[in-house]
Amino acid sequence: MYKSLFLSLLFTSVLVAQSQDEKMLKDIYNTTLTNSKCYSWLDDLSNDIGSRLSGSAGAAKAVLYTKAQLESLGLDRVYLQEVMVPHWVRGEKEMAYILMNNKKTTVPVCALGGSIATPKKGVTAEVIEVHSIKELADLGTEKIKGKIVFFNRPMDNAQIETMNAYGGAVDQRSGAGEASKFGAVATIVRSMNLRLDDFPHTGAQRYGDIPKSQYIPTAAISTNGAELLSGMLKQNPNLKFYLKQSCETLEDVLSYNVVGEIKGSETPDKIMVVGGHLDSWDLGDGSQDDGAGVVQSMEVLNVFKKLGYKPKNTIRAVLFMNEENGVKGGKKYEELSKQNNENHIFALESDSGGFSPRGFTFKIDEVNLAKVQSWKSLFEPYLIHSLVKGEVGTDITPLTSTKIVKAELHTDSQRYFDYHHAANDKFDAVNKRELELGAATMASLIYLFDKYGIE
Amino acid sequence: MYKSLFLSLLFTSVLVAQSQDEKMLKDIYNTTLTNSKCYSWLDDLSNDIGSRLSGSAGAAKAVLYTKAQLESLGLDRVYLQEVMVPHWVRGEKEMAYILMNNKKTTVPVCALGGSIATPKKGVTAEVIEVHSIKELADLGTEKIKGKIVFFNRPMDNAQIETMNAYGGAVDQRSGAGEASKFGAVATIVRSMNLRLDDFPHTGAQRYGDIPKSQYIPTAAISTNGAELLSGMLKQNPNLKFYLKQSCETLEDVLSYNVVGEIKGSETPDKIMVVGGHLDSWDLGDGSQDDGAGVVQSMEVLNVFKKLGYKPKNTIRAVLFMNEENGVKGGKKYEELSKQNNENHIFALESDSGGFSPRGFTFKIDEVNLAKVQSWKSLFEPYLIHSLVKGEVGTDITPLTSTKIVKAELHTDSQRYFDYHHAANDKFDAVNKRELELGAATMASLIYLFDKYGIE
Repeated sequence: MYKSLFLSLLFTSVLVAQSQDEKMLKDIYNTTLTNSKCYSWLDDLSNDIGSRLSGSAGAAKAVLYTKAQLESLGLDRVYLQEVMVPHWVRGEKEMAYILMNNKKTTVPVCALGGSIATPKKGVTAEVIEVHSIKELADLGTEKIKGKIVFFNRPMDNAQIETMNAYGGAVDQRSGAGEASKFGAVATIVRSMNLRLDDFPHTGAQRYGDIPKSQYIPTAAISTNGAELLSGMLKQNPNLKFYLKQSCETLEDVLSYNVVGEIKGSETPDKIMVVGGHLDSWDLGDGSQDDGAGVVQSMEVLNVFKKLGYKPKNTIRAVLFMNEENGVKGGKKYEELSKQNNENHIFALESDSGGFSPRGFTFKIDEVNLAKVQSWKSLFEPYLIHSLVKGEVGTDITPLTSTKIVKAELHTDSQRYFDYHHAANDKFDAVNKRELELGAATMASLIYLFDKYGIE
Repeated sequence: MYKSLFLSLLFTSVLVAQSQDEKMLKDIYNTTLTNSKCYSWLDDLSNDIGSRLSGSAGAAKAVLYTKAQLESLGLDRVYLQEVMVPHWVRGEKEMAYILMNNKKTTVPVCALGGSIATPKKGVTAEVIEVHSIKELADLGTEKIKGKIVFFNRPMDNAQIETMNAYGGAVDQRSGAGEASKFGAVATIVRSMNLRLDDFPHTGAQRYGDIPKSQYIPTAAISTNGAELLSGMLKQNPNLKFYLKQSCETLEDVLSYNVVGEIKGSETPDKIMVVGGHLDSWDLGDGSQDDGAGVVQSMEVLNVFKKLGYKPKNTIRAVLFMNEENGVKGGKKYEELSKQNNENHIFALESDSGGFSPRGFTFKIDEVNLAKVQSWKSLFEPYLIHSLVKGEVGTDITPLTSTKIVKAELHTDSQRYFDYHHAANDKFDAVNKRELELGAATMASLIYLFDKYGIE
């Protein structure tokens, strides 16, 4: 009888906890959908400040703006972490055309991040189309020397998650170093975009192990441009391509991670991070990548303050600088964490756009994953179904700790590469409710991990 | 031993069936994402034909176009079903402004479907703001007579599914009949839209049981317009509102449901329907509502033909006419089904926009629901998680049969009411992959029900 009484009390206390959690999640979602700041923050970040490439004036303004906004929330601590970041500039708008039968056909291109400029008068050369970096070695110097290498392997539309299609094609963006070894004078890369449209998509590229003197200019071409070029090459393999760009890498610049935190009420030395990256590419205004993740992370603190929730552990929003071309912010955060003997138990990043949330991917052991999955029924009313192991964000990847669970917000990825690193990554590409649902989902996960801890 | 041999064979055959189904779903999704027609069909329907309000030239063209496209698929039978439909026309573009302190402030409005016109010179009157139809009786004739009733209860942003927010507000759209009973001269209804923007959203309204002589003009106002009007009413409750519209209801018109079918190889008298509605409202081009559902339904037949799948039962795509303002097509389909002694075992509608699919809602008994839920693991790789009881589409609601399962494609609903019945429901609001994923998900469910039957 004692045993059954004990079991009955245990059962009751589990039910009470469950219903407290249900109520807390309901409060989080209600508040975020009806009374949050994230969308108006994104409006400011996107429409007043604009693009935020590391080292740019926009990035510097975004640091001051987000710091001031965090300070307005009445947090326990808001501060900056100094970090030196690369400073690449695009220069004048790029120009490119196909030269065939004495006719010039202009195509939309943009320099890839970190690329060198062409000579001032541009580069003109024949084009060789390839579909992989490996193909370069098969072709050899004889067929490549003096030409522009055109990487044209499309992203795979059959992938359900577009991130996988990206992963299967993005190596081409860093093919310039290898092409240079075979004497190529430049590379043109099909944009990482599943749609056929006229936007070239930029992104970081690396030359690899070749000496700087062998660097060659490299640019992305829109998917429609790539289709056109490929079609014209079939008609005339000897057509020529003209590319002009004036980008350059300047001296590194002092910049900052922006940090705001609510001190833990029971175990303040245990830290839970929620973050996104404050820098963006320069073509649009970085609303999806990653303005969304930034304002969602800030909203997590905002909703906790609004609801008067006092976390057991310290909850820290970190707005990382320089995710796009160096991850200097993420590395600096880890370096300072080590210096200060900090103990991180959890880190969540949102860097998959402000689309409808579907769940989270985790770097996690089985015991903690089982705990996460016991929360499934709490998330289902919010259409959050996917709580599985998987990749996490670039900024929290360097972070190490004795025992840490890492997570990434998993969003509906279908439209992500329509905008990614392109001029149309603008405020109007983000839907207010989708953004807010993501923020509420993040706050809910942090609440549950804060309450139940990690094993 | 015999028993364990039997169990082992049974287990093996279950595994084989499971892996056949996995392969078939993979083929369906691959084919639809890489080689489908639905997006280019939608392009034609939206950009060449345009809006398709019942009785309009667009609706007539859409009948001919979709019939011809279905004929090009090599189906066993393509035909039209005659149906008389209402013919309401908007007339000249509506005009409305707020008159306060001798200043006119124009606001975006549109007549609600089925409304009568104002007098030619328009109607000018004071405004009384209410938040429910019930409030009219509390106010009474004294406070309403001679005024324009302004229904301004917003959709509830705290709802996770926007369809529920719509369900909680849309009764106001048919408040004109009740307002007329208290002497109102017109009604203005806050648009069914969760966003604040400048698009008025139309939609069907009914006057209820009042005599025609007491009908009053009724129009929707954009959400920004509603906020403005409400704010100005607080400053000056005696401001006036001017509305002019010239819409009218003409004689009924002969129109058609469009039907295409693949004959069943084993039980052709058992019919499975997949459909959407061919008519749309007149302000945009009806890409989301319900061009998407139309081309997805056609795509189900296309993908089965492409894969050489021979269904056991007859699979019939039905493009219903007049869902928006009369459901005459859905009712006619049921009437003809009864006349022809047809036996329907399954009906699926797609009328929630071409957004990322999340699952299905079903009108179903427990036994068949258990069967559906046994398919969960087949759908999970495609991020389809929600297979639950719920509402189904308006067109398949009239359909009766001895034993029938009905389903509705459940899409991500967050953006639906940004476009619903408004001028921005255009082709560019539909994402190709989201549309295709919906079509593949529909084909997968039909494949499974065709193979395993209903109980």
